[in-house]
Amino acid sequence: MSTFMAELLGTMILILLGDGVVANTVLKKSKGENSGWIVIATGWAIAVAIPVYIFGPISGAHFNPAVTIAFASIGKFAWSEVPMYIIAQLIGAFLGAVLVWLAYLPHWEITDDKAGKLAVFSTGPAVRNTKGNLITEIIGTFFLVFALLGMANTKMVDGLAPMVVGLIILAAGLSLGGPTGYAINPARDLGPRIAHAVLPIKGKGDSDWGYAWIPIVGPIIGGLIAAVLFNVMF
Amino acid sequence: MSTFMAELLGTMILILLGDGVVANTVLKKSKGENSGWIVIATGWAIAVAIPVYIFGPISGAHFNPAVTIAFASIGKFAWSEVPMYIIAQLIGAFLGAVLVWLAYLPHWEITDDKAGKLAVFSTGPAVRNTKGNLITEIIGTFFLVFALLGMANTKMVDGLAPMVVGLIILAAGLSLGGPTGYAINPARDLGPRIAHAVLPIKGKGDSDWGYAWIPIVGPIIGGLIAAVLFNVMF
Amino acid sequence: MSTFMAELLGTMILILLGDGVVANTVLKKSKGENSGWIVIATGWAIAVAIPVYIFGPISGAHFNPAVTIAFASIGKFAWSEVPMYIIAQLIGAFLGAVLVWLAYLPHWEITDDKAGKLAVFSTGPAVRNTKGNLITEIIGTFFLVFALLGMANTKMVDGLAPMVVGLIILAAGLSLGGPTGYAINPARDLGPRIAHAVLPIKGKGDSDWGYAWIPIVGPIIGGLIAAVLFNVMF
Amino acid sequence: MSTFMAELLGTMILILLGDGVVANTVLKKSKGENSGWIVIATGWAIAVAIPVYIFGPISGAHFNPAVTIAFASIGKFAWSEVPMYIIAQLIGAFLGAVLVWLAYLPHWEITDDKAGKLAVFSTGPAVRNTKGNLITEIIGTFFLVFALLGMANTKMVDGLAPMVVGLIILAAGLSLGGPTGYAINPARDLGPRIAHAVLPIKGKGDSDWGYAWIPIVGPIIGGLIAAVLFNVMF
Repeated sequence: MSTFMAELLGTMILILLGDGVVANTVLKKSKGENSGWIVIATGWAIAVAIPVYIFGPISGAHFNPAVTIAFASIGKFAWSEVPMYIIAQLIGAFLGAVLVWLAYLPHWEITDDKAGKLAVFSTGPAVRNTKGNLITEIIGTFFLVFALLGMANTKMVDGLAPMVVGLIILAAGLSLGGPTGYAINPARDLGPRIAHAVLPIKGKGDSDWGYAWIPIVGPIIGGLIAAVLFNVMF
Repeated sequence: MSTFMAELLGTMILILLGDGVVANTVLKKSKGENSGWIVIATGWAIAVAIPVYIFGPISGAHFNPAVTIAFASIGKFAWSEVPMYIIAQLIGAFLGAVLVWLAYLPHWEITDDKAGKLAVFSTGPAVRNTKGNLITEIIGTFFLVFALLGMANTKMVDGLAPMVVGLIILAAGLSLGGPTGYAINPARDLGPRIAHAVLPIKGKGDSDWGYAWIPIVGPIIGGLIAAVLFNVMF
Repeated sequence: MSTFMAELLGTMILILLGDGVVANTVLKKSKGENSGWIVIATGWAIAVAIPVYIFGPISGAHFNPAVTIAFASIGKFAWSEVPMYIIAQLIGAFLGAVLVWLAYLPHWEITDDKAGKLAVFSTGPAVRNTKGNLITEIIGTFFLVFALLGMANTKMVDGLAPMVVGLIILAAGLSLGGPTGYAINPARDLGPRIAHAVLPIKGKGDSDWGYAWIPIVGPIIGGLIAAVLFNVMF
Repeated sequence: MSTFMAELLGTMILILLGDGVVANTVLKKSKGENSGWIVIATGWAIAVAIPVYIFGPISGAHFNPAVTIAFASIGKFAWSEVPMYIIAQLIGAFLGAVLVWLAYLPHWEITDDKAGKLAVFSTGPAVRNTKGNLITEIIGTFFLVFALLGMANTKMVDGLAPMVVGLIILAAGLSLGGPTGYAINPARDLGPRIAHAVLPIKGKGDSDWGYAWIPIVGPIIGGLIAAVLFNVMF
């Protein structure tokens, strides 16, 4: 399998599971409706860990343009491959969101809350505040990339690393997800937002494009700071 | 121990724990009443992981006709053994449901909710919608079988794989369980449904046989798609 | 360290953490008040896993007369050591309960609920039903001992087994704990019940001695059935 | 990297994640508002485990003056390095709290509850009771240090130990965190309390300096008792 397909399918499964857990908690009559933040944060953690098991040995399991760019910035990944990785991630994220739409098909019509329906697909701020929201995404992705680079300091037996990646995502959600819903990944936010815009979702509202740049720019900045700082320190 | 007995006992324990956690959250006065989706999804995840530890080395720990058929379809399992595996899984699932009935014996009479009592045994749709429910079960089992096959891409030290299987089940529940309760396993649904029909459960309603074909057909289709796609890709 | 001291201290820590998590959810004004079954079941799971890490290599980490007797019944443990192990477990359980009383010292007086205060120490039935409660404890301990014996079928790298033990306890709680609070361990119930009886707990009620034999007899029966069945099968 | 920087950055990430999870559950409109004790306890557990992965091989990953002093008291750590470690831990804890303040920037103004805002930074008693609160912190830290020392009894493959450390923290929170919020670490409490005092947090109240000595003295006593007892026993 090509690295392109691995990134595409890995990000697709990531979003199927990640947006899926939000659908489960947000959509009307879903069996997990209102089951809370522990469900959402755990769901996203495993949503990342499982495709790392499947596709990690093939593509390195970035699934995230902020990670790809951060790794390239310190020479851990070839700049020439960055565009291809990002395209694969975006297509995968879009397709994952389409699968979530299908998996929860009867629930869109009966859910009145337009913001909730968008929240299944993309992140949004708890309090709309450009500076604050940007800082949150920068800090969250700083933590993500710094921890992904730093966990290599500890020697690990085969098969443990994807679980540690899952723990890092769990931490990001539990501890830093409150203000913006922790995009910390431009593809995770933009791909599903495009899906929200184009899919025939019953009773949907607008796709909040005014916010869309924050979960792109914030994560890229945060990832770059983490990579450079990590490189200086170690 | 024969593979037949391993599949039977493994599926029995799977259902004892899986249907057990639903009983704990649904039945009146149970100490875990209304404890929510995180309890249900975690309970089912471990319900699978533990019999994998016990019976995995003997039978391969399918516990699921959709997995058995999917593996056979790509030559990972002998077609000649498929009927025996499925019979063992169904008997085990039935017996597991009988044990749950016994373990929660004083709670059936005091629980008025007939649908809740059936939900302990078998899955049911949050919104009754044949096409939608079938799609959900297809996507859920597609993910299950694809991930079970794909996790082998990552080398793992002894004893870690059953935990990863548990994480896959946890993901299925947290992210894809909302619309139909994630049967993703024909034996998991049919065996306990038969138990519900024949056991002298106090104040039970009907066993919703009209829905029973969906958690059989959907998972088989989803598993086959995953196996064939996986085989083409890798 | 002697096996006696290892069983004593291991069971003490088990009860400190296990009864502690119940105190956290039940006692008035505790920060975890009403935090639900996922907290209780997770707390008990780790309450067992951690002393297994500390004392497992010394005593085998039984911490449970039902386990000790079951293992002895199939020749995995010397009958001559059984009384000493059980005495150590009971003393440890008693001391653990004393530590919980101390750790939550200001909360006893402000908690009115007498049954809740007893529940911190010992198990009690959700629905009082001798036959039903006994069956629940038998099935729960059957599962516990069968799984503890069976997990050895899977080869494991060093350090993983205590986590699997924790998962087994988590399963027992999530799936089978609803009707009786899953004693599945005579020392876990009797030691703290004695502590409840003798400690100067403010505003306590009686120690429900009428129920006390069930979490002793049930677990011993369940453990014996599991051990014998396991021995026949494997 | 120096051990000083490792302790500083490790404690910074610990507090970023640990205080962050409290912010997520306590601050108004945060997406995890009121998500309960399982979120808080899990968040703190991973908050410790992740920096152990990153900095453990460099500094030993104390991140806690009570651990540093306890280890020194039994010759497992040089007394001459103790002051430097504690200074690093305090600075790191302070900086971590500043990052939490930034990550949740728009939420301080809209949160009326002054005690809740302080709780993001530092621990406080559920029931104010000097003797009781001190005992709780002593028992909690006794458990922490005893378990950290004792887990070494079990041989572990590479990469597993930080997860076991996380489980120990999870146990401390779930089971012993109810009465005082389990500081069990003087730097975890004092560093963020200083941050609370000096940061321009909108609508903050006082920093409850009258309580501040308990989460310093209690943990040091508890850690010392554990270390000495452990040394005598093993």
